[in-house]
Amino acid sequence: MPATPVKSDIEIARAADKKSIWEIGKRLDIPGESLLPFGNDKAKVSAGFIEGLKDRPNGKLILVTAINPTPAGEGKTTTTVGLGDGLNRIGRKAMICLREPSLGPCFGMKGGAAGGGYAQVVPMEDINLHFTGDFHAITSAHNLLSAMIDNHIYWGNELDIDQRRITWRRVLDMNDRALREVVAALGGVANGFPRQGGFDITVASEIMAILCLSKDLKDLQQRLGDIVIGYRRDRNPVTCRDIKADGAMTVLLRDAMQPNLVQTLENNPAFIHGGPFANIAHGCNSVVATTTALKLVDYVVTEAGFGADLGAEKFFDIKCRKAGLHPDAAVVVATIRALKMNGGVAREDLAAENVAAVAEGCLNLGRHIANVKQFGVPVIVAINHFLGDTGAEIAAVKEFCAEEGTEAVLCRHWAEGSAGITELAEKVAELADEGHSQFAPLYRDEMSLFQKIETVAKRIYRADEVLADKTIRDQLHQWEAAGYGHLPVCMAKTQYSFSTDPNLRGAPTGHGVPIREVRLSAGAGFVVVICGEIMTMPGLPRQPAAETIGLNEDGEVVGLF
Amino acid sequence: MPATPVKSDIEIARAADKKSIWEIGKRLDIPGESLLPFGNDKAKVSAGFIEGLKDRPNGKLILVTAINPTPAGEGKTTTTVGLGDGLNRIGRKAMICLREPSLGPCFGMKGGAAGGGYAQVVPMEDINLHFTGDFHAITSAHNLLSAMIDNHIYWGNELDIDQRRITWRRVLDMNDRALREVVAALGGVANGFPRQGGFDITVASEIMAILCLSKDLKDLQQRLGDIVIGYRRDRNPVTCRDIKADGAMTVLLRDAMQPNLVQTLENNPAFIHGGPFANIAHGCNSVVATTTALKLVDYVVTEAGFGADLGAEKFFDIKCRKAGLHPDAAVVVATIRALKMNGGVAREDLAAENVAAVAEGCLNLGRHIANVKQFGVPVIVAINHFLGDTGAEIAAVKEFCAEEGTEAVLCRHWAEGSAGITELAEKVAELADEGHSQFAPLYRDEMSLFQKIETVAKRIYRADEVLADKTIRDQLHQWEAAGYGHLPVCMAKTQYSFSTDPNLRGAPTGHGVPIREVRLSAGAGFVVVICGEIMTMPGLPRQPAAETIGLNEDGEVVGLF
Repeated sequence: MPATPVKSDIEIARAADKKSIWEIGKRLDIPGESLLPFGNDKAKVSAGFIEGLKDRPNGKLILVTAINPTPAGEGKTTTTVGLGDGLNRIGRKAMICLREPSLGPCFGMKGGAAGGGYAQVVPMEDINLHFTGDFHAITSAHNLLSAMIDNHIYWGNELDIDQRRITWRRVLDMNDRALREVVAALGGVANGFPRQGGFDITVASEIMAILCLSKDLKDLQQRLGDIVIGYRRDRNPVTCRDIKADGAMTVLLRDAMQPNLVQTLENNPAFIHGGPFANIAHGCNSVVATTTALKLVDYVVTEAGFGADLGAEKFFDIKCRKAGLHPDAAVVVATIRALKMNGGVAREDLAAENVAAVAEGCLNLGRHIANVKQFGVPVIVAINHFLGDTGAEIAAVKEFCAEEGTEAVLCRHWAEGSAGITELAEKVAELADEGHSQFAPLYRDEMSLFQKIETVAKRIYRADEVLADKTIRDQLHQWEAAGYGHLPVCMAKTQYSFSTDPNLRGAPTGHGVPIREVRLSAGAGFVVVICGEIMTMPGLPRQPAAETIGLNEDGEVVGLF
Repeated sequence: MPATPVKSDIEIARAADKKSIWEIGKRLDIPGESLLPFGNDKAKVSAGFIEGLKDRPNGKLILVTAINPTPAGEGKTTTTVGLGDGLNRIGRKAMICLREPSLGPCFGMKGGAAGGGYAQVVPMEDINLHFTGDFHAITSAHNLLSAMIDNHIYWGNELDIDQRRITWRRVLDMNDRALREVVAALGGVANGFPRQGGFDITVASEIMAILCLSKDLKDLQQRLGDIVIGYRRDRNPVTCRDIKADGAMTVLLRDAMQPNLVQTLENNPAFIHGGPFANIAHGCNSVVATTTALKLVDYVVTEAGFGADLGAEKFFDIKCRKAGLHPDAAVVVATIRALKMNGGVAREDLAAENVAAVAEGCLNLGRHIANVKQFGVPVIVAINHFLGDTGAEIAAVKEFCAEEGTEAVLCRHWAEGSAGITELAEKVAELADEGHSQFAPLYRDEMSLFQKIETVAKRIYRADEVLADKTIRDQLHQWEAAGYGHLPVCMAKTQYSFSTDPNLRGAPTGHGVPIREVRLSAGAGFVVVICGEIMTMPGLPRQPAAETIGLNEDGEVVGLF
């Protein structure tokens, strides 16, 4: 059994006894020639191999989600990795599916996104840096379309694009606030027609969402073509297909569409593929990775972004709806510390035992449990153990959950690896095997866009009302008239609260959900509903992590984690 | 012997009988664990392995350069590949070193950059698209520095950077004219201080030049730190090191520093690594690739950008000077068609035999031959055969060269692969083996910057004078005072003429070289001298190639080549 970590995540990751990626592939019966290696510890699984899996039965699909995040940390990715290792430890054939981390934020605040302690995926440095180049490919494809739009206008604007109504921006995988709003095409005749635009971070690109929702290359190109880049003078939408960019973009994304195989510290297989924002997009790894994993193993553990109000809702209502997935069980991750913060404790007071605050914070947990159950999916709670947690605090959570008809299991995977999470693994496998899931999305395609928004706001956020002015409602009606009414909605709000006020922790009621803006992601296939300030291009802090990142004498990366 | 090509380059490339990259590595005695594969046909050679080669003797270094380019085409890359294959065919252990092509231009005009006919490197699609991600890494490193500059100003501008005097721009590997001049940081307080800036294409990034001139990671970080990003209010330079970005940039470039191994159609090894612009930068593949290749084989064939007036001059005066390389022989590539155009024939009249025009065009060739000889390097001419060339035309070139004391050899590698270029291979090997090279750069480090410019203009371009107003001369003096006087100059002018007028073909005399602008590339280690309009961000044509690029039913790329 591994020692309790006193080592940092990166130290543990570097000490990993990695197997070659061909060995990992072999465990999944993927022949060597169907792996496209990137170094000896990462590989893409070829589209041809994936095509050949179609007729196999699916394994069980397990979602890992969480309470509303707090600065105290919940360890959702760590628990996903731990649960995958735990299932393998108890003799089940399992793999995990995670999102790829974004490069830009690595240079802002310290911290990677590949799990932690003894529940990590490796090689963590590569995963957090360029990895297999998927995000770079998305950046290129996105900006090719941008360049072709301005080029179309430059050469005569045959499509009569209204330059004031171009909604397609540019992207970079970098935290660069100076690019949020720019006026481009300055400098005279040779540079085109000046107009205001801007850059988002690559994870906010609609192409990221499209790549993650596409079944195959054909579906990808169809969706790319469907992107609405703006509107004509007559207000009719202009698509990427009109610009004739969809073919070249598909070529740029061909390799990126193939899922990336890596391994956990315990040499269990993991797909890490795609990483859309969890607010303006659906926040899940790719459909291709998940559906492929379901053909390869008996249990697939995957996660969704942020808390269950955002992440699980979108996983169910967008990803599962679109891809025809049928989740068999869900795990809601909580920590004693995060529950305390949801119960009103300040960050600096977290060390002291506070059973009352834990109990108060459990109202947040309870609502997430009830929400997941609304989708018909059996749920279990994972208490991700931290060193300072007391027995009384843990007992309070278990008791609360028992009253809610749900079991809560203490997990020590961070400190102990799979050995610390066998109880959860046994129970999750049992839950999934029972076949009690009666999954259904929350709302039907046929409902109006506004009804869909109301349904999520009232049934998931427990709001009293949705506030939207006439412009917003008119826009939704216009899209319905244009044939986009059947799309699901993708809610973008703060992840820190059920409400749109990040300071309202716990289980607030009586609030309204004000809609600030709606956006059409016609290629990804959803309508984004923005409630509150949503930042799609982060900035760097006063002392960016980049200032202390470098290579040490041994050529190893320091300062990144 | 291969048939005369009636197939397209891409058809030939797809039909290639590729060996696995581990087999190619084995031929160079590179152990499997020292190769970092990207798929099964591309690999990076590990820095650790390269470090271990230090004490081996060097092979012979052969430069392939050309007459001034014309729309008729010279086939410099094709000849470089062919000569490498030819040397292997005659039993010499040889490899080639090429530049990586840029992604952006692929979506403008059709055409890749991996050779042609039966003299190509493969996999050509990958090489022309994302390849091993080097350019993406350079884009990321460049834009990280950009973001950190604006971030520094945002948080208080402790370094007192003069926002009007920031010279560091941003880059994208995309032809996007709308980004040439932008005003960024609009939108209010949260987005920073608005200022005018812009984007260049990635190959024009100083980081590209730095990566290609750095000996190892330590040297890379030193050079990155030396980059001058702009000036303080007191006019003192601000460096990348002042911004504290050099460490994180080195981390982003760590993998990109390792040269990329691929193969020719005839399974001979090739490094394709780095691709700086040949006008505002030095236009050669990386020093790491060239010096590594020299340790691995007996003959290394490499090429320089554009014609010998720009490419060879910079190869000698910048790359060889900085890296301590000693070229043993040079090949000047010409085609009958291009000589005719240099002799005044219009493109539409190229099909007809015109011996007089060929003879006239030979004046251009003759001057390049004489120029290369000024550097002390033995030279030979390769006539890259085209189907319509007549015997009389070829005889005219051979005769002219003989009079100049240089041999010209007809080569049919495009149609016949290595079998068509054995004569050249034999003669180049002989020339290199003789050891007659007395290579020395054209000017000494100690000369003033302006004297260096004059030396190149008068001795290479055969101009009468250099025209520079006081501002330019003052700027050069300031840099000399600041300690940059020892740097070589990197001339940026049209590639189509010895002069700065692209229409002046052949061997013009009596012209002046007007300097429009000078720029300091303190990290790369040269002063860029811009003579005429130099575009560092191309645009897309009216009908970009991207419109017809796509995947066919078999998932193969069409329209790219």
